[in-house]
Amino acid sequence: MQKILYTNNVSDAIKGLVDEINPISVHIITDENVEREVLPKLALSYQRIVVKPGDEHKNIESLSYIWGSLIEQGATRHSLIINIGGGVITDMGGFAAASYKRGVRFINVPTTLLSAVDAAVGGKTGINFEGFKNEIGAFAPADAVVISTILFETLPREELLSGYAEMIKHGLLSSAQEYNELLNFSIVDADMASLLPLLEKSVKVKERIVEEDPKEHGIRRALNLGHTAGHAFEEFALEHGKPIPHGYAVAYGMLVEMIISHSLEAYPSEELYRYAGYLKDNGYGTPDFSCKDYDALVEYMRHDKKNITRDSINFTLLSAPGHPLIDRTVGEEEIHAALDIFRDLLGI
Amino acid sequence: MQKILYTNNVSDAIKGLVDEINPISVHIITDENVEREVLPKLALSYQRIVVKPGDEHKNIESLSYIWGSLIEQGATRHSLIINIGGGVITDMGGFAAASYKRGVRFINVPTTLLSAVDAAVGGKTGINFEGFKNEIGAFAPADAVVISTILFETLPREELLSGYAEMIKHGLLSSAQEYNELLNFSIVDADMASLLPLLEKSVKVKERIVEEDPKEHGIRRALNLGHTAGHAFEEFALEHGKPIPHGYAVAYGMLVEMIISHSLEAYPSEELYRYAGYLKDNGYGTPDFSCKDYDALVEYMRHDKKNITRDSINFTLLSAPGHPLIDRTVGEEEIHAALDIFRDLLGI
Repeated sequence: MQKILYTNNVSDAIKGLVDEINPISVHIITDENVEREVLPKLALSYQRIVVKPGDEHKNIESLSYIWGSLIEQGATRHSLIINIGGGVITDMGGFAAASYKRGVRFINVPTTLLSAVDAAVGGKTGINFEGFKNEIGAFAPADAVVISTILFETLPREELLSGYAEMIKHGLLSSAQEYNELLNFSIVDADMASLLPLLEKSVKVKERIVEEDPKEHGIRRALNLGHTAGHAFEEFALEHGKPIPHGYAVAYGMLVEMIISHSLEAYPSEELYRYAGYLKDNGYGTPDFSCKDYDALVEYMRHDKKNITRDSINFTLLSAPGHPLIDRTVGEEEIHAALDIFRDLLGI
Repeated sequence: MQKILYTNNVSDAIKGLVDEINPISVHIITDENVEREVLPKLALSYQRIVVKPGDEHKNIESLSYIWGSLIEQGATRHSLIINIGGGVITDMGGFAAASYKRGVRFINVPTTLLSAVDAAVGGKTGINFEGFKNEIGAFAPADAVVISTILFETLPREELLSGYAEMIKHGLLSSAQEYNELLNFSIVDADMASLLPLLEKSVKVKERIVEEDPKEHGIRRALNLGHTAGHAFEEFALEHGKPIPHGYAVAYGMLVEMIISHSLEAYPSEELYRYAGYLKDNGYGTPDFSCKDYDALVEYMRHDKKNITRDSINFTLLSAPGHPLIDRTVGEEEIHAALDIFRDLLGI
């Protein structure tokens, strides 16, 4: 089981873990932004491997650069890798660790809310390949994850909203009460210290699910809520040269999937309005597409990793907040209809 | 646990496994030689991904080609990959399967004695990177391995000798009796049907060890017998543009390590002569190096994945046939002395 530390004393937590693991050598994997903005505050003296920031660099070239740097720095199987960064770094650094010499130990230190709540926990690692997100990777849990909300203090509003969408997803999967609590909290105005207990609760939802089903044979698929439609929005936006934050895509995806849940599983209609209102009030904006793009969006959904065949599209749906339903196959017409209602609700 | 089928009815065995696993789609990974020489005999109608043969193509480019082809052929997480080939194919195809969409199932069908006895069994997958062998990879056991000696009937003598060296290694690890039986069998003149029971016994030695220690934290390191020095010979030869078969390198490596075992662990001197004689009588030839190359060879040994630090060199040694000793740290002078005796024994 992954060890998760919730703390606002990051450096000491990292040093404590290094002492405990007692590796031959320590290698930080990070990106240029984090190196400039965050590492000076942490004052860690380990060797560094620094890649270019951004999802467009979560690719085989950056991964090869990391592998090559590990060789150059003399990393052995008994070394330790510390991934410090957002989801790109924890995913790619995790896969680098999982595949270098067939696997070395690693720690994740997420520097964005999104990676803290999602990417840094649960053992999914990977890179994008030929335009498909996380197409290549491994299930490889970090030895430990250090979660600290003070690292988020300098994050732009967009990054906070993006991460908060994944927290809302965990609330939706967990209980009506946890979901309500999250819709009543305003992430944009919050001070980051008050976020730590809420974040801990949210990460524990994911931990519970992952522990039950580490390799995603069943209930872990519930965590894909919002992601089948969300990845489609994200990949579509990227293809059109206007990338959107992952969490925004998931926030939109959850609305699409709530609409489908309403049609097929009697998800309450008032919940659709409440959630759409939340997105509008909190500045999530809207995705840029028209009815001419439905086929392209459906095509992206069809490629989703959790589909069983290329001919069916598989969603996580909800009968109510706190009641997920996995492996629901949905037809194309149903998705088109949901996209119509989605545009109505958000006024696109 | 991996299922291993020993059979000389390969096609039926494969079709039976496919029926049992019942995948969405089946994708054969193979190389141009195997496609030409072996696939026509098997008459399998599955989709194919064909790479260039040879260890020099066991690299990130071939791996990317395989990943891209899996996407193109519409492989999902519920597909099945069948690796048909030598160690390059089973290692690289296994890693492709382990990393595509974070892991799909795969079967290995070794077409060389070497891959049957070694690479196809035990879950080590990988590719070479920046000149280092199997530097990148994963521990990922095949769902099943189909072992058939009739596939070896057209193998050149060199390939048989190469694979047989790994069988001798298993004998050395297992018991004096099994080792003696192997030194009394002549692989070059044997008919392949008579090899199947001997091969089954040999693979079972590896299975027993891997089952006890799948991730190589302890006793599995015994399987590295001959490989610390062997990989050095192999990489040195490759660097000088005169590649030698892996099994030849291991055969030489075992002699070096027996010599060190004699100095440090009282391995019987008569066994050194007997084994050196076996190599000479059976046409294993000799590696091409002089005393000027000792430092280069030691440098390769220093990079071996199982070393705990960059400053120590870690060997599997023997106190007698059937009695391996893992994690023995050996100094540079000791290795130089062993290389001197090695050249004497083989008359280099």
